[in-house]
Amino acid sequence: METLLSFNDRQVRIGPQHPFVVIGERINPTRRKKLLETMAAGDFSVALDDARNQIAAGAQVLDVNAGVPGADEPKLLADLTRALMQSVSAPLCFDSANPDALQAALALYTGKALINSTTGEEKMLSVVLPLAAKYHAAVIGVITGDKGVPATPEARLEVARKIVQRAADYGIPAEDIIIDCLALTVGADSNAGRVTLDTMRLVQQELGVNLSLGASNVSFGLPDRKSINAAYLALGIARGLTAAITDPTVPELRTTILACDVLMGHDEYSMRWIKSFRAAQKVAAIA
Amino acid sequence: METLLSFNDRQVRIGPQHPFVVIGERINPTRRKKLLETMAAGDFSVALDDARNQIAAGAQVLDVNAGVPGADEPKLLADLTRALMQSVSAPLCFDSANPDALQAALALYTGKALINSTTGEEKMLSVVLPLAAKYHAAVIGVITGDKGVPATPEARLEVARKIVQRAADYGIPAEDIIIDCLALTVGADSNAGRVTLDTMRLVQQELGVNLSLGASNVSFGLPDRKSINAAYLALGIARGLTAAITDPTVPELRTTILACDVLMGHDEYSMRWIKSFRAAQKVAAIA
Repeated sequence: METLLSFNDRQVRIGPQHPFVVIGERINPTRRKKLLETMAAGDFSVALDDARNQIAAGAQVLDVNAGVPGADEPKLLADLTRALMQSVSAPLCFDSANPDALQAALALYTGKALINSTTGEEKMLSVVLPLAAKYHAAVIGVITGDKGVPATPEARLEVARKIVQRAADYGIPAEDIIIDCLALTVGADSNAGRVTLDTMRLVQQELGVNLSLGASNVSFGLPDRKSINAAYLALGIARGLTAAITDPTVPELRTTILACDVLMGHDEYSMRWIKSFRAAQKVAAIA
Repeated sequence: METLLSFNDRQVRIGPQHPFVVIGERINPTRRKKLLETMAAGDFSVALDDARNQIAAGAQVLDVNAGVPGADEPKLLADLTRALMQSVSAPLCFDSANPDALQAALALYTGKALINSTTGEEKMLSVVLPLAAKYHAAVIGVITGDKGVPATPEARLEVARKIVQRAADYGIPAEDIIIDCLALTVGADSNAGRVTLDTMRLVQQELGVNLSLGASNVSFGLPDRKSINAAYLALGIARGLTAAITDPTVPELRTTILACDVLMGHDEYSMRWIKSFRAAQKVAAIA
């Protein structure tokens, strides 16, 4: 199954037959003081630098979050979207729990966006899915149900199935739903990683939809989080993960993703691998 | 399914419910000049250092290869085996294409060894399987058939099935067969990695046996081979790989394997991960 995203004439295809798609996570003011302060002042220079740097590091889609405490989020997300559309040409992923903010950004966006996210909860589905249908956007569906995150892969599959079915009720095809199997923290529960990986396999086999992941929660509280997150991406890719919301400017993550593309047959003649290695060598020679 | 290996009272269990098992590859004189020269002179000091260093780095089993050109391989493998048995207490994996060498080492080994390897070729099966049966050893079965390495996962599965069935004819149970799905070089064929990964899934689902891999061929000819090999291990682990013949003294490989153990639920409270991180910090502080 293939999820098409676009911005003007730029298209990005997510699917098991394509290279892995990185959705750059950095344009998010949560826990990033400088980005927060500049965005709060209506200055998008830091956000635009983040956009360019992530694209240079291999991001094909940019997550955009305007959650600045106290700010008018719909206006801020719309303004930031306009600024991004004037500066870079990657499809955008609108990251908000505020329906008015999603509406404001989707209304002015020229292309097929991604919405981050709905859960399987009725109150979310009934708000987010109509917006996706109206603007022909794709949607990330996180497998949280009305009673929270189910414990077993089988119960999580049922939440994913519900999201796909409710989307169909709104005329949204399954290829426009990307399921996030939700990585909980292994530091809190040793089985958290395995349950999510088993859910990925099940959802991929049963529903055939694309899978994404916010790949950094899993390592919360552990040392050397980058290495855990990188290994998690590789394990996920072998289970059907076709995209992730992550930071491609972290070398360990970018390298792992490029290596997986080589090994999954998505980098003919290993051209991107070799090119990336040479670029890193040049940077090292200058430093 | 669980493969038990042992040396005296030391037991190692390979299986999806256990931490990943590293079979240390370094005691192999091919392409290692100093090891070759010392072994050729009957001096096992370098080999014993390799044994200790690999165990310290997390190897649970040691591959032992005495392929010194011009040497009496049965005598050399037997002598090396004796030296190892007197110095370390890890189960051994006898790595030879010479049946007399395997026979000599197996005859004096006190425990349940691993034989590396048979293929699916009749001429190999009819020589290696009787040795495994006689000495109650486990065997790595490489999925090369009488007509070479099949192109598709389905055809490779049939070679694996043949190995397991022929082993059964000799009274060797399936849990004593570890299938190597054979990583060919992605530099030569972009699909080589994917075909092997798909074979792993198929063999694991259909036969339920343990899987091992010589994990370094895949990256031959590419830059930054360590990163490719590390990603390949993680992809493989998600597909059912439970052991690998690799070098745990390479930090990238050791880190990836430990991270996968955390994420697959095989490192309770992430104790081994945290311990390894602290040990690396100490080394860095001294250096």
